[in-house]
Parts: sequence; structure tokens; C-alpha cells
Amino acid sequence: MNKSAEIICIGTELLLGEILNSNAQYLSQQLASLGISHFYQTVVGDNPERIQKVLAIAASRSNLIITTGGLGPTPDDLTTKSIADFFAIPLIEHPQIWADIQQKYAGKTITANNRKQALLPQGAEILTNPVGTAPGMIWQPKAGLMILTFPGVPSELYPMWEQYAIPVLRSQGWVKETFYSKVLLYWGIPESALAEQVNSYFALTNPTVAPYANYGQARLRITARAETKEAAQALITPIEAEIRQITGKYCYGVDDDTLADVVGNYLKTHNQTLAIAESCTGGWLGEAITAVAGSSTYFLGGVISYSNEVKTQVLKVSKADLEEYGAVSAEVAKQMAVGVKHLLQSDWAISITGIAGPGGGSIDKPVGLVYVAIADPEGNVEAIAYKFNPNRDRAWIRMVSVYSALDQLRQRFVMI
Amino acid sequence: MNKSAEIICIGTELLLGEILNSNAQYLSQQLASLGISHFYQTVVGDNPERIQKVLAIAASRSNLIITTGGLGPTPDDLTTKSIADFFAIPLIEHPQIWADIQQKYAGKTITANNRKQALLPQGAEILTNPVGTAPGMIWQPKAGLMILTFPGVPSELYPMWEQYAIPVLRSQGWVKETFYSKVLLYWGIPESALAEQVNSYFALTNPTVAPYANYGQARLRITARAETKEAAQALITPIEAEIRQITGKYCYGVDDDTLADVVGNYLKTHNQTLAIAESCTGGWLGEAITAVAGSSTYFLGGVISYSNEVKTQVLKVSKADLEEYGAVSAEVAKQMAVGVKHLLQSDWAISITGIAGPGGGSIDKPVGLVYVAIADPEGNVEAIAYKFNPNRDRAWIRMVSVYSALDQLRQRFVMI
Repeated sequence: MNKSAEIICIGTELLLGEILNSNAQYLSQQLASLGISHFYQTVVGDNPERIQKVLAIAASRSNLIITTGGLGPTPDDLTTKSIADFFAIPLIEHPQIWADIQQKYAGKTITANNRKQALLPQGAEILTNPVGTAPGMIWQPKAGLMILTFPGVPSELYPMWEQYAIPVLRSQGWVKETFYSKVLLYWGIPESALAEQVNSYFALTNPTVAPYANYGQARLRITARAETKEAAQALITPIEAEIRQITGKYCYGVDDDTLADVVGNYLKTHNQTLAIAESCTGGWLGEAITAVAGSSTYFLGGVISYSNEVKTQVLKVSKADLEEYGAVSAEVAKQMAVGVKHLLQSDWAISITGIAGPGGGSIDKPVGLVYVAIADPEGNVEAIAYKFNPNRDRAWIRMVSVYSALDQLRQRFVMI
Repeated sequence: MNKSAEIICIGTELLLGEILNSNAQYLSQQLASLGISHFYQTVVGDNPERIQKVLAIAASRSNLIITTGGLGPTPDDLTTKSIADFFAIPLIEHPQIWADIQQKYAGKTITANNRKQALLPQGAEILTNPVGTAPGMIWQPKAGLMILTFPGVPSELYPMWEQYAIPVLRSQGWVKETFYSKVLLYWGIPESALAEQVNSYFALTNPTVAPYANYGQARLRITARAETKEAAQALITPIEAEIRQITGKYCYGVDDDTLADVVGNYLKTHNQTLAIAESCTGGWLGEAITAVAGSSTYFLGGVISYSNEVKTQVLKVSKADLEEYGAVSAEVAKQMAVGVKHLLQSDWAISITGIAGPGGGSIDKPVGLVYVAIADPEGNVEAIAYKFNPNRDRAWIRMVSVYSALDQLRQRFVMI
């Protein structure tokens, strides 16, 4: 018999459409990468009777049931009890879970509801939650059926899956063929143009190559299947090299790399420092740079020069130029970069000034007009103008401004 | 008998995790707002046998089945034929669909596969697709069961649902009551403690009250059903007032409000200005404040004082104090707030300094230790120490630092 898994996501908030079911996508990707077949997903509300009906269906057609949600401390968190009741097995309190909950709540109010989270069906093993108070479980309620439960909070689910669930699935023989993917990341080229460049690769079968876009970023996913991860990687390597050759400088990294990582690695390696001056992005560029742990070795800081007074008084932008060219201009962008480089005594500086909308645009300077300036260690400064789609919202324009600014610096490094 | 709907999303790409199931969220929201009960969602791949198994289950427990996906022109688009076969009804070609497809493909290659899209089960009505070539259908295969099919492309699904499906559902008596929800937003109180405070409200049936958490934020959702939106709102108002009375200052807003909105509204109304100094959050606080359109009327800007030199030279933090107390201390937080308030000549200032991890922690100053300081227009400055969960990741600790800082300012405003 072919073994297969299925996913049950539990939570009335899903049925009301209050949240996107990103957990289902995450688990789907994980099961696919492990080569575990998976044919069905179900969403059900926080209702014991309906949870049990869904369980009955899943148990009749699958051997591995993975649930998310309903493990919290409130009265509508009913997953564990519903599962135990379905199999008519009593709940047992686990003292180590209760101790862990009390420790995590140290200094805060702990309630009777919290204690419910220490209960698991008899025979179930604890699936440790390294982050929150809701542990999951690994339970084999009968021969040929395994149930894994996870909390619905993605930042708790991910480490629990990766650290605890995958080793269990491996040890129990669930993982036979391995699927391994590498994603090439691009900036400054649209998905359609990228796809056109590497069109001939889309017919490959192992590895496969597929384009997709995510938040304005074009990507190529190369996926290979083999008995081991190493064998899969070996299939990917030559194709990746060919594609990189074709797509050139637009490719800035792979998998979880960010533009801030790439820029940061260069600065760290070359022992150089960076300062920034931001107007329309209001701190987002700094946030992106400092999202990288260890960024303090090369990032000195910056100035959020949201008002014109901060531009002239702190960054020493010329008042006359500010009046003549306006705050959103190549001239002011350059002076912002030079000003913060001087103030913070950095090797490099980036500045951003633009119109993120929805208000503030004019015919000459529409929403989406953004200037990025880069000041280099030799004392050169250059401004680049962007005309982003004015129909995009404020958050989108700010986001692509930040990435474009980081990519400008990256391109300087590539050329050096 | 209570009528209820369910959603079946069809597509192997969903099972592989290649796309997020945003259609399920969209349809969930739509059903909720129309007051149509909906208890289950299923995802299944492009496999006729499994599609029919899922249909059998859905038809046994629901009266309205809504499918998405599998209507395209490729060989793996099997939804319409699978549904027709399940009810043993032949497919009939609709000449007007075929004419529409040929018109939409004018100038492009049209294949035999495309013609498949003109087939619907006998008795089904066409659900026009104003955008793409794949029409859906409205079909009553037997008494008490209606099936609506939609393409999986969101930009096609949305207009088809809004222009065609909603009027049909109204005319067939599906839309009786309207559901209306209001979400109360909290900061500074865990979900479990909040739930404990308002425990007695969870037994209400109309409106209902339910707690949930999202990114560390506790929330209460009050949902009423009535014949009109206004009548539903009238049911919510007194309960909301009672809950606000009980939960007090922790409630900062409703629905889409952000802490930055609330703080910004106060500053705008009182004609006061704000400046910020950020260390571990690296610009995130500024990003959150400037995410609000129009924030330039009260937000002057700030300093990202990531390095100690920026703290001492730009913000004028005492070098001696920095050495004695360390960069992560109440003393330095206070001097950062006072320094930026003075530099930018603002009425209010917020500073943040802390250890976001994963490195940089010590026994005295562990990861998660964050100081927020608030400087007020009267020249007072106060620092608040937070000990966030060190097991959370860098992004989480930075996020809750930003929200906690905004909330500190909000609490000052509430007290005034």
C-alpha cells in the first residue's frame, strides 16, 4: 500500500477568511521536498464534532495526518481533546510541559486555561515548541496511522517541523526519494524577460527549471530528485552554472539570500562601512540592512531625514538647492548621501528620496518617482532615477525603493 | 435543514505548495460577509478519481459546493468532466462559449484542448468569464445541491464571483442575513490574560466574541448577524463598549488600525511633532511610523544610531555613561531620546536600544533585553525595560520592540 500524508488546518479564522492559510503552503512544500505523497488538505473550524468528522475521513484514506492550529490556551482551542476523544483515549498531563509553560510565563499572569496545554492523549509524545507555550504531539493512535499536531502560529510551526518532525519522519521510513530545490534570485529584470532568456531550460525533467515572481522579484527554481540530497545537488550544479552565465549580473543570490546579505558580505570582507540617509522609505532601508545578524560590523547607522529641516540641518543639504530642485531630485539625493557619509564617517553611503504616495505627486514629479544616490570611498557620488508604477500602493513603492537602493550598491561591488 | 456551503480548491500546484491558496481566503471572506455558513474547505490535486471522492464527501454534508481551478485548456484541467462523470450526466458543447474562446484567441494558436472549455454538463448554466477563456458553471445536479465552478486565476475568479455568482445566490435565497465583524486590537497583554478578563462573553451567540492572536498581538473579534449591516453594527456597539470598559487601556484600536495610526492621529490633532532614535531596530520604528500616509505632518525623522560613535557624536550620549552602563541600558536609552529630541527640535522623542540576537547576549544582558525611552514636551524622560522571550528570533524581538515603543507613546497620550 502506498503511504500518503494529509494536512488538516483547524481554525474558524481560516473559514472566516481572516488569515491566509500559509501553513498549508509551507507544509505542502516541505512534504514535496521530502518526497512524501500528499493528496488532500482540509480546513475545518474550532468545532469538536466537525474536527472529528474530518479526522474520520482523513484516517480512512491516509497514514500520516498533520494538523495545524487549535493548540492555544483559549476555550476555542480544541484540537488535542477532539483527537483524543475521537480515538477514545484519555488525556494525561505532562509535568514537563506545565513547567515549561510556567517558565515561559514568568512574570506574566498565568491562568487555568494555560494548563490545558500540558495535556496530551495517553501514549502521545511531546513535540517540543522551542518558541511558544503550545507543544504539539507525535502520536500513533493505531497501527498504520501517525498524527502530528502543530500550533497555527507560523513562527512556532517552522522550527518544530524542521527540528523535530523531519527527523521522526526520516527514522520511520517516510522519506525515500529526496527532492532538492535551489532558487536563483534576481533584481532589476521582470519575470517575463528572465523567462524568455532561459526558455529552453523549461523542458528539462530532472532537474526541472521554473520561473516565478514574488513581491516584484523574479526567481528561477531548479528542482532535482535523487536518492540523496548530494546526488540531487550534483544534478543542479551544471544547470545553475549555465543559467548564471546567461542571466549575468541580474542574479544576486540563491535561496534565502537577501540583497542586504549580499551587500553586507562584501562590506565585511572588504572591511568597509556603510551609512544611509532615508526620506520616503522612512527607515525601511536601515531595517533591511540590520535584519542581518552581525550587521553592526559594517553598518554605522543613518539619518531618517523625513522633514526638509533634517535634510538641511543634520545632513547639510544646501537650502538653495533644496528650494531650486525640490526634495525629490538627483541633486538632493546626492547631497543626502554625501552629508550622511561625512556625518558618520563611513566608506559608503546610500540615500533615498522619492514620492511613495498616495498623495504628494504632481505632473513633473509623479507618485513612484524615486532617486537613489550612492557615495563611494573615492568621493564620487551618483544618483539614479526610478519611475515605479504609480498604481502600486505606498508599501510597494517603498519596498522596491529599498531593494533598488541595495541593488545599486551591489552592482557597484560587482563592477569593482 | 441548515444550508451550508463548502469550498473545494483543485490543483496539484496547491498540493506542491507552489502557490498560496488565496482563493480560499477570498471566498471565505465573501461567504462570511453574505452570511452563508461554511464549515469545510478541501484541496485536492488534478486527479479525476480523487476529485470525485472529495465531491462525494462534500455533496453528503453541504448544499452549495464552490470549486476553483481545473477549468483551463491543458490536459490536467479535469474539474468539469470529473463533476459531470460523478453525477453520470453527459457533457454538452455550448456554441457561444466556443465562439467566445475563438474570439479571445484571435491571432493566437488555438488547439483542440481549448475546445474542451466549451463543454458543460447537460443542464448547467454558463458562468461568464469576462477576463479569460475559462467559463465556470452554475449547476443543480440534484434537488438541494448547487455547484458553482470558477477558474483558479484570482483576477478571473473575483469578477465572476462578484458580477455573476452573488446575484444568483441572492435570487436563490442563499443570502438572508449579513455577518459583520469588528476586531478589537490589543498590545501589552497576552491572549490568555485577555481571554480571562472577558471570559463571560464567549458564551454569547449574537454577537459572538472570540479571542485570537496574530504576530504577538491579542485580538478580540465581535461578530453579529442581522438582516442589514447597520442592524449587525447595532448589536456589536453595546458589547464593544462593555469589553472596552473591562479591558481598558490595553485596547488601542479596531480592525485595520495600527499603533502608528493611533499615535499619528494624536500628534496630528495636537499639532505636535515626533523624532526617533533607533539602535537594535535599525530603522524599523521609522518604517512603521512612515507607513502611515501623511505622517510627514508630525514625523520629523530620526537617527539610526547603530554604532556607539553615532550615539555619542550625533546624539550626544555621554561617552562616560556609555562605558559605565553599556549601550543597552536605561541611561543610554534616555540620552538617545533626549539627544534626538534636541537635534531635531521635536515635541516628543522615542528611543530604542536592545539586544535582538541571536548573538550579543550575556548573563546580565540577555538576548531580548530592550530599553525604550520616551521624552515628552515638558522635558521629562523615562525609560522602560522589556525582557522579551530570548527564544524568539531576531525579527520577532525587533518587531515587538517597535510595537512596544509605539505603545509606550500611546499610553502617554491616553493618560494626558
